[in-house]
Amino acid sequence: MIRFDCDYTEGAHPQIMAALAATNFEQTCGYGEDAHCENAREYIKKSIECPDADVHFLVGGTQANMTVIASILRPYQGVLCAESGHINCHETGAVEASGHKVLPLTQTNGKINAQQVRDYVEAHWRDGAHEHIVQPAMVYISQPTEYGTLYTKSELEELYACCKELSLPLFIDGARLGYALAADKTLTLPDIARNCDVFYIGGTKVGCLFGEAVCIMNSALKKDFRYMIKRMGGMLAKGRLLGIQFEEMFRDGLYFRVAEKAVENALRIKAALIEKGIPLLMDSATNQQFPILTRAQQKVLGEKYALGFWDTTGGDSDAIRICTSWASTDENVDALIRDIKAL
Amino acid sequence: MIRFDCDYTEGAHPQIMAALAATNFEQTCGYGEDAHCENAREYIKKSIECPDADVHFLVGGTQANMTVIASILRPYQGVLCAESGHINCHETGAVEASGHKVLPLTQTNGKINAQQVRDYVEAHWRDGAHEHIVQPAMVYISQPTEYGTLYTKSELEELYACCKELSLPLFIDGARLGYALAADKTLTLPDIARNCDVFYIGGTKVGCLFGEAVCIMNSALKKDFRYMIKRMGGMLAKGRLLGIQFEEMFRDGLYFRVAEKAVENALRIKAALIEKGIPLLMDSATNQQFPILTRAQQKVLGEKYALGFWDTTGGDSDAIRICTSWASTDENVDALIRDIKAL
Amino acid sequence: MIRFDCDYTEGAHPQIMAALAATNFEQTCGYGEDAHCENAREYIKKSIECPDADVHFLVGGTQANMTVIASILRPYQGVLCAESGHINCHETGAVEASGHKVLPLTQTNGKINAQQVRDYVEAHWRDGAHEHIVQPAMVYISQPTEYGTLYTKSELEELYACCKELSLPLFIDGARLGYALAADKTLTLPDIARNCDVFYIGGTKVGCLFGEAVCIMNSALKKDFRYMIKRMGGMLAKGRLLGIQFEEMFRDGLYFRVAEKAVENALRIKAALIEKGIPLLMDSATNQQFPILTRAQQKVLGEKYALGFWDTTGGDSDAIRICTSWASTDENVDALIRDIKAL
Amino acid sequence: MIRFDCDYTEGAHPQIMAALAATNFEQTCGYGEDAHCENAREYIKKSIECPDADVHFLVGGTQANMTVIASILRPYQGVLCAESGHINCHETGAVEASGHKVLPLTQTNGKINAQQVRDYVEAHWRDGAHEHIVQPAMVYISQPTEYGTLYTKSELEELYACCKELSLPLFIDGARLGYALAADKTLTLPDIARNCDVFYIGGTKVGCLFGEAVCIMNSALKKDFRYMIKRMGGMLAKGRLLGIQFEEMFRDGLYFRVAEKAVENALRIKAALIEKGIPLLMDSATNQQFPILTRAQQKVLGEKYALGFWDTTGGDSDAIRICTSWASTDENVDALIRDIKAL
Repeated sequence: MIRFDCDYTEGAHPQIMAALAATNFEQTCGYGEDAHCENAREYIKKSIECPDADVHFLVGGTQANMTVIASILRPYQGVLCAESGHINCHETGAVEASGHKVLPLTQTNGKINAQQVRDYVEAHWRDGAHEHIVQPAMVYISQPTEYGTLYTKSELEELYACCKELSLPLFIDGARLGYALAADKTLTLPDIARNCDVFYIGGTKVGCLFGEAVCIMNSALKKDFRYMIKRMGGMLAKGRLLGIQFEEMFRDGLYFRVAEKAVENALRIKAALIEKGIPLLMDSATNQQFPILTRAQQKVLGEKYALGFWDTTGGDSDAIRICTSWASTDENVDALIRDIKAL
Repeated sequence: MIRFDCDYTEGAHPQIMAALAATNFEQTCGYGEDAHCENAREYIKKSIECPDADVHFLVGGTQANMTVIASILRPYQGVLCAESGHINCHETGAVEASGHKVLPLTQTNGKINAQQVRDYVEAHWRDGAHEHIVQPAMVYISQPTEYGTLYTKSELEELYACCKELSLPLFIDGARLGYALAADKTLTLPDIARNCDVFYIGGTKVGCLFGEAVCIMNSALKKDFRYMIKRMGGMLAKGRLLGIQFEEMFRDGLYFRVAEKAVENALRIKAALIEKGIPLLMDSATNQQFPILTRAQQKVLGEKYALGFWDTTGGDSDAIRICTSWASTDENVDALIRDIKAL
Repeated sequence: MIRFDCDYTEGAHPQIMAALAATNFEQTCGYGEDAHCENAREYIKKSIECPDADVHFLVGGTQANMTVIASILRPYQGVLCAESGHINCHETGAVEASGHKVLPLTQTNGKINAQQVRDYVEAHWRDGAHEHIVQPAMVYISQPTEYGTLYTKSELEELYACCKELSLPLFIDGARLGYALAADKTLTLPDIARNCDVFYIGGTKVGCLFGEAVCIMNSALKKDFRYMIKRMGGMLAKGRLLGIQFEEMFRDGLYFRVAEKAVENALRIKAALIEKGIPLLMDSATNQQFPILTRAQQKVLGEKYALGFWDTTGGDSDAIRICTSWASTDENVDALIRDIKAL
Repeated sequence: MIRFDCDYTEGAHPQIMAALAATNFEQTCGYGEDAHCENAREYIKKSIECPDADVHFLVGGTQANMTVIASILRPYQGVLCAESGHINCHETGAVEASGHKVLPLTQTNGKINAQQVRDYVEAHWRDGAHEHIVQPAMVYISQPTEYGTLYTKSELEELYACCKELSLPLFIDGARLGYALAADKTLTLPDIARNCDVFYIGGTKVGCLFGEAVCIMNSALKKDFRYMIKRMGGMLAKGRLLGIQFEEMFRDGLYFRVAEKAVENALRIKAALIEKGIPLLMDSATNQQFPILTRAQQKVLGEKYALGFWDTTGGDSDAIRICTSWASTDENVDALIRDIKAL
């Protein structure tokens, strides 16, 4: 069985495994205050072109989302996001666990826009009984979205301008950020950092064993973040494991290279799907593709490949998720393409 | 600088590193449902002689503590523990973050006893206004304690008998459990499992990169624990990393061997301290030793060794923590012993 | 200015004021354990024909909602409700404050149905990754709904049968329950009690100064509810104030009589609106009516009456809320009707 | 049976009952935005000599404590208080329910002092691992304390100077504040307001049916407090009930007069106890007295009076609470004094 069902089916990029092995007997202090973490922070601050950012390493995405959001909101405030947003759908209420309501907005291709945010916030304050309603106080988006789609540079700039005007911090979930950067070179990592208050660079799904690098640009949001990490159960004793991985990823661009290769492979699969006349649920430019396959097609491919069920689409078909990752081999991708063509 | 300040200064036991490297390109499903996790669960259930236990792997100790406690208590209930307990002192309110009060009891050598629990619970129910007071509803202890001390088998049995009589689940934090088992062979791992409702086997401080194996014996506490893990931000995408590590640790007793070696080394250091006439804060039988050193002695040793500051003890001295671990080399231990003798 | 904007514009029914005055110097114990509370509980249990119910008195509706919901759910569970439900829209995240997600379902005339609940729950369990999603674990409805509409007896029975089959407790918010009972005599108070696990009888909006009587029929949900009340800040020191009010209300049917009068008046206003050709947002049979008035009509009526803004409806009109209550005088209602006819 | 067991055994001062009756059919808007609340706020701001304070009315003390504390702290912060403080002992974890740890300090006569606060805070920041520990971030005291004792003006000034220096808001629980002001005329209500950031004036135990007036002097703590009230379930629909009561209390000093009378009566009882040679647990100057009575004495008095059990004191005696209130009649007090003398 060849797996294309998600982008966390293997361990880590060999260069990371080598670095972990090479440093294994170094003695360091704990909790992310060692030299590897320091180096990784420096590399990342250079990559995002933001020397004043605070960079913290967390183990996973849900943890990063809940920690950042709880660090920003006051108790009666909520976070705006697409109804399809990860925090709204797939985190078992981790945001609500910290006492905050997720405020869903209608999504279009997995995205929300500045106008929706403005309308929501203005309606809130227009309501005479606004203190009876959760106060919208920050915005969460994912780049790429759950559907593999992308905010363009101008969409992001417009959204952030709106957020700044309304004094709502903008937080970008970058669990798969590498794949977004690989897919659209006109929106760079420094562009991301310039157009939000906090974001994170996902490692778990882009070549690391685990790890998300939270970058806080807005200095009003930096205070005491390490307390928040510890309080939410997210402070890794051997914090260096995160530092060592992100050192490898950002020393000379490995993060970008592994993502590019994955996107390249995903686009080859996409081309085969289109050529075959298989409809796509979304026009995704990243490592996740969502063909609508008949049950018969699913059965044929399912004998050889693990694909992800995504959603029912009515009739005899379902939307299926095909993911490539830093670890997908050309061989496996070629095989899948052949088998798609043969459907 | 040679570090003896804590037991998480290195990476992981070489056998674990080798296993991670060897499995790196295997493709598995995520979230702890892969074959490695399954194997590790089987090994552990055999080791604890409890085939019906549920075993879950979490990344760290604070996460394990907060997840287990929140899964057991109803909103108005609290957890009894020693005032020196980790959940009361060093987790930045992670238990309170889930809405529960920690109910501290006076500690003696880091321990609490059955009588204290009984007295507290009886006093609660005797009070006519008991619903104005947090209801004591479970008991948390650590083996070994924060001070490196141990519950004897009979102390543990007495405590658990009391807990069962009072219908309070007993939860044992075993972040350093390996060192306890190595120090007192009359209280075995199956004894631990038989004398509590939930406990965990700490990997982070006993040879793993990270990881705690939560074992739930009480079937009333098993339901939906995976939801709790996800909700608390603790579900690792590449859950196999935990499975692979605990496979190595419990396939043929590596966990016990690495802990034994560390305790052996700690007791050699302890003997040197006693021989030198240096007072000890606690009579610890495990990998943590707490000599009371003068500032001058601290200065001399501090030139070569990183030791942990533990507490002020008045006058010109402080209690200092010296930790060995699975990674301490005989060489470094010999050097420290020589330098203690030369003080 | 004559107020028809909500149903809590006056104090309390004169019989309640008289009872409070008459008992003012009685000495009683606190916290709801006095004889008045006991009497009131007995009257209510007789009225709902459920001698085994537990009855607790709380001060207000949001408090009742958040306390009941938090007492039922485990941390990773959520509550299903209409997207227009009070807990979802107008309680500033009080449910989320206790760590739980509100799971909104599409509403039709303010209502949800058994099929929606069944579909949601089945979809949850069908999803292989269900532990990544908040578990639906109870259902909340209001009778009457936010829009003044009513569940019929058969709708309620069907919904409750479905809830029982799926093991989801059904909780009915009865903040305005009196008005529902007055509007539809085929669905009685004992019917309500037989068709849910918990509900409350609203006093605040139906003749009391304040107070909601929570009735717990399901014995699995009764344990330690007084702890929950205290923990959520809802335990009134002079609990007798609640007992005295509900004694008056349920000794000989005052609760039903005041509600009937209010509904009668509301239906007279409704008839005038229809006669005048003014469209209604909802076909409400209870004390809340929602005419769609032009801005010009609003201006004219607004000179003499305080009406409630409800929602924009596009164009030059808005949906307006007109509420009667136990306190509306015939005189004021007559005046309003005359002025509606004169529009 | 004559009750002296607590100070909430009757309804409200007759002047309040009269005002509620007189205003019963006035129509007002809800949620504390009516003219009575406005008037009451103005009277209180004049009484505390702080025209810029924000004044909010809440129903009860636990609600006031949990709302104020949750409005001030960030998630990882805790509140310092005496180990005997109400929030630590008798609120069923309402503070922990909002995610915050209560940080208890050793009490002396129910009080804590500036030095204790300073030591705790300095120790926190000295600890290298401070982010592993709940951050002390505000101070809670009660005036009078749980034991009926009082902070002197200079003690309070010293404590507040320390709090300001350390940037910790000081919050005073004034559930029985009237009795404190009556007992020590050198510490006035404006002194209280000048020496803390937030406090509340208790009505429930000092002549009202219920109600606590929260006064926020520190403007950094004022923002969005009404959202907090609603979110914590504390917003009373008929908010005017609170306004009407506090209007009566503060229009021309009724609050002070009722408290004075109660303290006068308490001191007469205290004198009788001393004269009789009965030991007192605490030297209380307020409406609560704590004689240590033998079981035999308790039995005799218990036939005629409801007294409060306070604590075991060893041997054959217990500390008993005797409370007077605004409602205690001279007759009943005289009777009790006679019976004490006859013991």
